[in-house]
Amino acid sequence: MAIGFTGSPLQRLDRERPDLAALARHREDPRALLLRLDGLDPVPDDAGALSWTPLADHDPTVELALLGLLDGRPAFVALTPGVTGKPAFALFRVLAGLPTPDAATWAAARSLVDWHARHRFCGRCAALTEVTRAGWCRRCPACAAEHYPRTDPVVIMLAEHGGRVLVGRQPRYPAGRYSALAGFVEVGESLEEAVARELFEEAGVRATGVRYVASQPWPLPLSQLMLACVATVESDALTIDRDELDDAKWVDRDGVRAALAGAPEAPFVPPPPFAIAHTLLSRWALGEA
Amino acid sequence: MAIGFTGSPLQRLDRERPDLAALARHREDPRALLLRLDGLDPVPDDAGALSWTPLADHDPTVELALLGLLDGRPAFVALTPGVTGKPAFALFRVLAGLPTPDAATWAAARSLVDWHARHRFCGRCAALTEVTRAGWCRRCPACAAEHYPRTDPVVIMLAEHGGRVLVGRQPRYPAGRYSALAGFVEVGESLEEAVARELFEEAGVRATGVRYVASQPWPLPLSQLMLACVATVESDALTIDRDELDDAKWVDRDGVRAALAGAPEAPFVPPPPFAIAHTLLSRWALGEA
Repeated sequence: MAIGFTGSPLQRLDRERPDLAALARHREDPRALLLRLDGLDPVPDDAGALSWTPLADHDPTVELALLGLLDGRPAFVALTPGVTGKPAFALFRVLAGLPTPDAATWAAARSLVDWHARHRFCGRCAALTEVTRAGWCRRCPACAAEHYPRTDPVVIMLAEHGGRVLVGRQPRYPAGRYSALAGFVEVGESLEEAVARELFEEAGVRATGVRYVASQPWPLPLSQLMLACVATVESDALTIDRDELDDAKWVDRDGVRAALAGAPEAPFVPPPPFAIAHTLLSRWALGEA
Repeated sequence: MAIGFTGSPLQRLDRERPDLAALARHREDPRALLLRLDGLDPVPDDAGALSWTPLADHDPTVELALLGLLDGRPAFVALTPGVTGKPAFALFRVLAGLPTPDAATWAAARSLVDWHARHRFCGRCAALTEVTRAGWCRRCPACAAEHYPRTDPVVIMLAEHGGRVLVGRQPRYPAGRYSALAGFVEVGESLEEAVARELFEEAGVRATGVRYVASQPWPLPLSQLMLACVATVESDALTIDRDELDDAKWVDRDGVRAALAGAPEAPFVPPPPFAIAHTLLSRWALGEA
């Protein structure tokens, strides 16, 4: 199954972004498209796909970012300041119905709009910055610093011991849901070191080896790169950090399969299919992780 | 061989960072250490290791970050504003002599100090922000936004075709040096998608599969998480982006081995051992990537 938020058909024109003449051509292209958003959220059309309007309809007082080309047509998003999205549970219902490639295109747009709203001023000198590079950079007119959209690397992992994997429950999860543990990669840390640190802190287990499995961009609430791994651990004795997790437990392959199949006797409710934790559990259950 | 900038003995006390009483205890601990820096650069001691002074010696007007515990002793770094480092060629000579675990500790400290200097003001509202969470966060007193240290995910990869891998040369490299191609992961993109996009843009080759190999933190000039991969590609026909690369060429296993051994007839000069491109080339030459 496709990994959530991947496979966008968008052809990113990143090498062309500094070229003002090319940008003007794309803006004047009569086939140019503007992404429809409800705040920061996608607006599905009647067929359930992401919807677009002609760029000519856009509010000329709002700045634009060039997402790239879609089927050869320039695709833009409006950098509306201060917009917010629906609460996660309402948005997740919309996302569950969106084709994965459309969700991927939306994720890029959402991350970009939200980043601009949070980074209007220069962190170095406090001046109001200006949109440049076709909406993919903000430049400070006072100190000349360039600021680029931010993506935080996050590790998300299954500890593995004796044919079972560890799933945990955060207090904010819906009833019955368990998922892979996760945490931000810090400065001065490799992916593998972040996996080991987080597993020890959250569950008291010591990693002896880390296998990378897959990745996905994740746009909520801020832009993240989710790096999914399986980590073999020394022992299945747990010391759970109750500030982070309500509970954590070991589940075998049959239990994971039952959970993914939605069986009534399953030991937990899995995360939604567009979350890479779902991919990670599926691949592990198939012996592919 | 150890991967550069990994294996720090630092025990990060991240769960304890919001605890002001714990921070005060660490600051008052008579065994507490302060990292010696020359601007942003490490200061090797007589044995070539990272050097420290008693925390009591620090300038009380400069804010501190708690790096963590080193052998049970609280280890701090001063968040000196506006410091800069040596040019890369001078610094790289210092780094080449530093034990890898010490380079890893320095990388975390360097990234943190530099991040604070670049993020004094709130990007959302322009107010001067305040150091919080033991130096691992800046909080805005005006709008309450919290800002955390930034790390950018970067893909670095060898395209592979017919038993050979692709190495490229950036204009700024020393004479003869070639390395793996690299580029930033953008918002709304998976690691695998970023690898494919960068390889196509820089060299005109189409990835058919991506294998993750290893990662490292890289502190220069800004904090990056380097994600090293091998990507099989459809064809060895190249279209080189001359704005990015002086040259790119295919090298077989014998050529890579000769380069890593520093043989005079080698087809290229490899990157330094602390760069993950060196790890990637070594593992590929050994058939482990």
